[in-house]
Amino acid sequence: MKRKAFAGLLLVPCLASPVFAQGVSPETKVIVDTLWVLITAMLVFFMNAGFALVESGLCRAKNAVNILAKNFIVFAASSLAFWAVGFGIMFGNGNDVMGMTGWLTMGADNSPATGDAYQGVFSSLNWTGVPLYAKFFFQLVFAGTAATIVSGAVAERIKFQSFVVFSFILVGLIYAVGGHWAWGGGWLSKVGFADFAGSTVVHSIGGWAALAGVIVLGPRIGKYMPDGTTRPIPGHNMTSATLGCLILWLGWFGFNPGSTMAADPSAIALIALNTNMAAAAGCLSATVAAWLALGKPDLSMILNGTLAGLVAITAGCNAVSVGSSVIIGAIAGVLVVYAVLFFDKVKIDDPVGALSVHLVNGMFGTLAVGLFATEGGLFLGGGFAKTQSQLIGIAAVGVAVFAMSLIAWFLIKMVMGIRVSAEEELEGLDLGEHGMEAYAGFVQAHQEMRTEIV
Amino acid sequence: MKRKAFAGLLLVPCLASPVFAQGVSPETKVIVDTLWVLITAMLVFFMNAGFALVESGLCRAKNAVNILAKNFIVFAASSLAFWAVGFGIMFGNGNDVMGMTGWLTMGADNSPATGDAYQGVFSSLNWTGVPLYAKFFFQLVFAGTAATIVSGAVAERIKFQSFVVFSFILVGLIYAVGGHWAWGGGWLSKVGFADFAGSTVVHSIGGWAALAGVIVLGPRIGKYMPDGTTRPIPGHNMTSATLGCLILWLGWFGFNPGSTMAADPSAIALIALNTNMAAAAGCLSATVAAWLALGKPDLSMILNGTLAGLVAITAGCNAVSVGSSVIIGAIAGVLVVYAVLFFDKVKIDDPVGALSVHLVNGMFGTLAVGLFATEGGLFLGGGFAKTQSQLIGIAAVGVAVFAMSLIAWFLIKMVMGIRVSAEEELEGLDLGEHGMEAYAGFVQAHQEMRTEIV
Amino acid sequence: MKRKAFAGLLLVPCLASPVFAQGVSPETKVIVDTLWVLITAMLVFFMNAGFALVESGLCRAKNAVNILAKNFIVFAASSLAFWAVGFGIMFGNGNDVMGMTGWLTMGADNSPATGDAYQGVFSSLNWTGVPLYAKFFFQLVFAGTAATIVSGAVAERIKFQSFVVFSFILVGLIYAVGGHWAWGGGWLSKVGFADFAGSTVVHSIGGWAALAGVIVLGPRIGKYMPDGTTRPIPGHNMTSATLGCLILWLGWFGFNPGSTMAADPSAIALIALNTNMAAAAGCLSATVAAWLALGKPDLSMILNGTLAGLVAITAGCNAVSVGSSVIIGAIAGVLVVYAVLFFDKVKIDDPVGALSVHLVNGMFGTLAVGLFATEGGLFLGGGFAKTQSQLIGIAAVGVAVFAMSLIAWFLIKMVMGIRVSAEEELEGLDLGEHGMEAYAGFVQAHQEMRTEIV
Repeated sequence: MKRKAFAGLLLVPCLASPVFAQGVSPETKVIVDTLWVLITAMLVFFMNAGFALVESGLCRAKNAVNILAKNFIVFAASSLAFWAVGFGIMFGNGNDVMGMTGWLTMGADNSPATGDAYQGVFSSLNWTGVPLYAKFFFQLVFAGTAATIVSGAVAERIKFQSFVVFSFILVGLIYAVGGHWAWGGGWLSKVGFADFAGSTVVHSIGGWAALAGVIVLGPRIGKYMPDGTTRPIPGHNMTSATLGCLILWLGWFGFNPGSTMAADPSAIALIALNTNMAAAAGCLSATVAAWLALGKPDLSMILNGTLAGLVAITAGCNAVSVGSSVIIGAIAGVLVVYAVLFFDKVKIDDPVGALSVHLVNGMFGTLAVGLFATEGGLFLGGGFAKTQSQLIGIAAVGVAVFAMSLIAWFLIKMVMGIRVSAEEELEGLDLGEHGMEAYAGFVQAHQEMRTEIV
Repeated sequence: MKRKAFAGLLLVPCLASPVFAQGVSPETKVIVDTLWVLITAMLVFFMNAGFALVESGLCRAKNAVNILAKNFIVFAASSLAFWAVGFGIMFGNGNDVMGMTGWLTMGADNSPATGDAYQGVFSSLNWTGVPLYAKFFFQLVFAGTAATIVSGAVAERIKFQSFVVFSFILVGLIYAVGGHWAWGGGWLSKVGFADFAGSTVVHSIGGWAALAGVIVLGPRIGKYMPDGTTRPIPGHNMTSATLGCLILWLGWFGFNPGSTMAADPSAIALIALNTNMAAAAGCLSATVAAWLALGKPDLSMILNGTLAGLVAITAGCNAVSVGSSVIIGAIAGVLVVYAVLFFDKVKIDDPVGALSVHLVNGMFGTLAVGLFATEGGLFLGGGFAKTQSQLIGIAAVGVAVFAMSLIAWFLIKMVMGIRVSAEEELEGLDLGEHGMEAYAGFVQAHQEMRTEIV
Repeated sequence: MKRKAFAGLLLVPCLASPVFAQGVSPETKVIVDTLWVLITAMLVFFMNAGFALVESGLCRAKNAVNILAKNFIVFAASSLAFWAVGFGIMFGNGNDVMGMTGWLTMGADNSPATGDAYQGVFSSLNWTGVPLYAKFFFQLVFAGTAATIVSGAVAERIKFQSFVVFSFILVGLIYAVGGHWAWGGGWLSKVGFADFAGSTVVHSIGGWAALAGVIVLGPRIGKYMPDGTTRPIPGHNMTSATLGCLILWLGWFGFNPGSTMAADPSAIALIALNTNMAAAAGCLSATVAAWLALGKPDLSMILNGTLAGLVAITAGCNAVSVGSSVIIGAIAGVLVVYAVLFFDKVKIDDPVGALSVHLVNGMFGTLAVGLFATEGGLFLGGGFAKTQSQLIGIAAVGVAVFAMSLIAWFLIKMVMGIRVSAEEELEGLDLGEHGMEAYAGFVQAHQEMRTEIV
């Protein structure tokens, strides 16, 4: 694509000069690539704020401190875990299953050398010519994203310390192993599995880990009534949720275009646009679907539809046309509405819709690469091979991550407990876990009710 | 300007090398320009969050979900409308009135080729050497801004679906036509009209469309009392409004400096600084003006003064000195305070001051180019020619956009209705339009009052 | 460091071409450096939103408008003060104590020329090859940061206009003089004092100015009881505080890596990573320290621990290893918890912990350069010389800024008063200073109580 777009410029004479022939000197390329990688990494970092706001906003005020604290500390935990062991397991030289070098993000490395010129222990990242610490920083913010997805699904009943411990395990081990398979030179990368920016590697892994946690935890008290009905538990702050979703949309312009890890003009322009169009289509299709299914355009569905579109385009944002992005996003927006309804029907209590957004659409987005890819996509006459690779990846990562997460959650439950007491859950985790309120001075309805009862 | 600033550097020998002579190879230039365009576009995208927070924060809690939903979905609608038809009408090759090619953002295009080397259907953008999708993405976030301006002015009484439909019409047609005149090779660009980053094209167009809507809608119930007095309706969340304004200030560093669509060091540094100084001056002058006019430094006036400074410097940020920016911003800050008082006097109900900020100061800022431009400005001895061109543009765009918008609003009113019922307006649009509350669990004063009455 | 990292690339032949030898042409370097400086400056600008949210969130709802207004207007005031006089005093050519040229940011200047080729009145900034206005804009956002630090410490009892006046004095004079000593070619820069991104220049200066203000103001009514006990006054909005802290963390990726004022890939990657790791370590160590000291993981301590790590790594982010960053951050996180307890013990009332974060850890971070620097650090076998220079700088800046600030605060107190009336303080500064509420319509507990009493 780049060659075609540059065709006009390449007609300029003076091809004798090696600099001119290349157009961009090696040192200049390192500079612009590093700028791009660092700036997009910062945008992805900011997604922590987005997740914190969406997840706390869609839950109750009495648990807001707890959710904010979880979403905040999870990136600190991710930073240490990924620095110490996760990065080595994911990208260090090793075998088909995991990396075995690069602990503490150290070891031989002559980045920004690339390709055959690269000599070091992180060979799986030798395709990008930026300094090692830029590579690590970019991958770290991705790892943090996977961990923060879990927070929303297990919200309003998990013990604070149990969540922190699981975050260390997820980022240091589970995510790193799954990521090694697809991005670190592991076996999945050898069967043609394509997941450009992480519909599976980041979002589905986060989603599977969350699903395991939700199952071990059980639903919140009062969510599913004895008579079989489901009680809606409205979020306490739609301003938070909306701002958070816009921050996530912004962050995705780092997430997807930054995954080039190179300032390739045509590629990053296409990816940025595909990302945006899928989000827009997901937003509108979820609005319509919610309107039809629920009678009104529910704002939380509008927001989750947008996120669904973003998750779904993540795997194929570099490989599909703008038109396909619109279609993928539109499907994702409908999927998320019905997924939310489905999970409630089977009594899997996910307070913020994280499973519907990240797990369901992470899988769909990964599959969509097989269907819509300009080169090799089933719907574009490419046959079934690409789709098959995608299905293998979806299934393998799903089984492995779900199993590892289930074991981790059970171990945590046995060793330190996983769920707060029923009394603490009713009173709110903010007082029980943190000894404070999120909105001191504001009168809450449940407080009034308590006063009335007393 | 660039040449002068680079004078020292150009003294370096070796001018024989074509690369060295140019200093920047064509491919390098495409890369850095694309980085700049995409990153600044992301900042402008983030302005959606700023508008959502400012507008919802300055309205009542009972309408917060509705305003957030409007400001959120408007960018999704803009994305599809501008992609499908707006971009073609605005920048596609056509006639003096509108573009007639480039539907679905497709068609012949060999960007990043520039000038005479460009061969495609978007000739009006051949001055910037970035990929087509980068051009589109940047222009899209501008189109979205125009649409989001409307949301605040029509808040607290408009039907959700009517607003969404108008957004499609505004971005797909009205904004695109007005934009074509000034930026897309239309007739205004041929009479010397100068609007660098859109005081008229974005802000006045949004403002005129909003004014038409406000007139068709009428004021909110209870705003203008039968005895002739005006009742202040305070906003529900000044934290939102302040954060939103800071996000807008940040976003303007994309809006104005990004409008170079090229990483020209001296130009973007000047523009960034001018943008900041006008905002600062507008903030301080509005503070003083509000203190004198109202007795206290009202925070919403401080915020709107800043936005007024930003809107006013938008047209001329590349063409005036830093000192002129301070003066332009200071005037804008005073203007906005008196404009807010004026609109209330004539019973035009604009809940967030959008008309005072975007329409009044969009016009003033456009005029200010004629007065303060370093080259050709009336106050700098350049005669009246430049000012005349500006006045023509202000008037022509105003008449055309206001007329088209009025027609669109009336059609919407006839076909699907435009205003919610009085009962829904009193109860709040959040329950009526979306079936939910923004702050579930928080006790609101009007709820208490209702309880007392019952 | 750059040379070593680039070793592989430098082996490419064709060293005969001057362009290729350098790798990056002078004009390209100006472009990428300017992009980096402007983009990071925008991130630092956004820290204004972070400070506004953290400081207002950690105070009471009845003072929220006032704190938001202070944190908002302070950057406008800083912009004018630094433009008119501060930049000249700080970076203009002058003597060892202060600059004496460059008023109104004007004067001879041939930037982006660097080193001996530079001929102008801002010689102390001739090491960075970006346009003058980019240098100014970057330095301006730093100056604004110093001023905004003061706001939190003096919150909930200072008169609005008195704070605004002090901000002009701080940015225009006090900060500029202290900054001249270390960064503007003054005497501290000649004794080997190292403060890369401003642990002392920005954070300690802000902290000392705040301490002087807190002493002159006295504690808030009701904070320290007659019986010697301290009453906790909880913040009103932990969502604000958490979002604000994440925005600050993001902004620090501009603050520290941007202080290279050049797009040096290895340097900016290292600095970004060091910044992040210190923040993460500070977050986790403060969590543990608070858990041990207070019994629960208090969210405001988690947030302040993160900020403490960020402040502490600021001086040495370019000079220490990633491992040292983790250690520095971890120490900072513990320090801040005990500093908060200490200030309450000595009855210095700092509502948001600004002194503990910025003053204490600004000093510690500056000292840490002497201890941990890879080259010359005491703990790395470099002897005591570097540490001695750091101690001289810490003490000299502390004495000078504290004395100047004390004089300024006293003058303000004499001329216009400094503290609101006790009645206004009890009712809240929002009504008294601004005539409005932050959250109109929400029922506050103290309002209910008042109703009960009546």
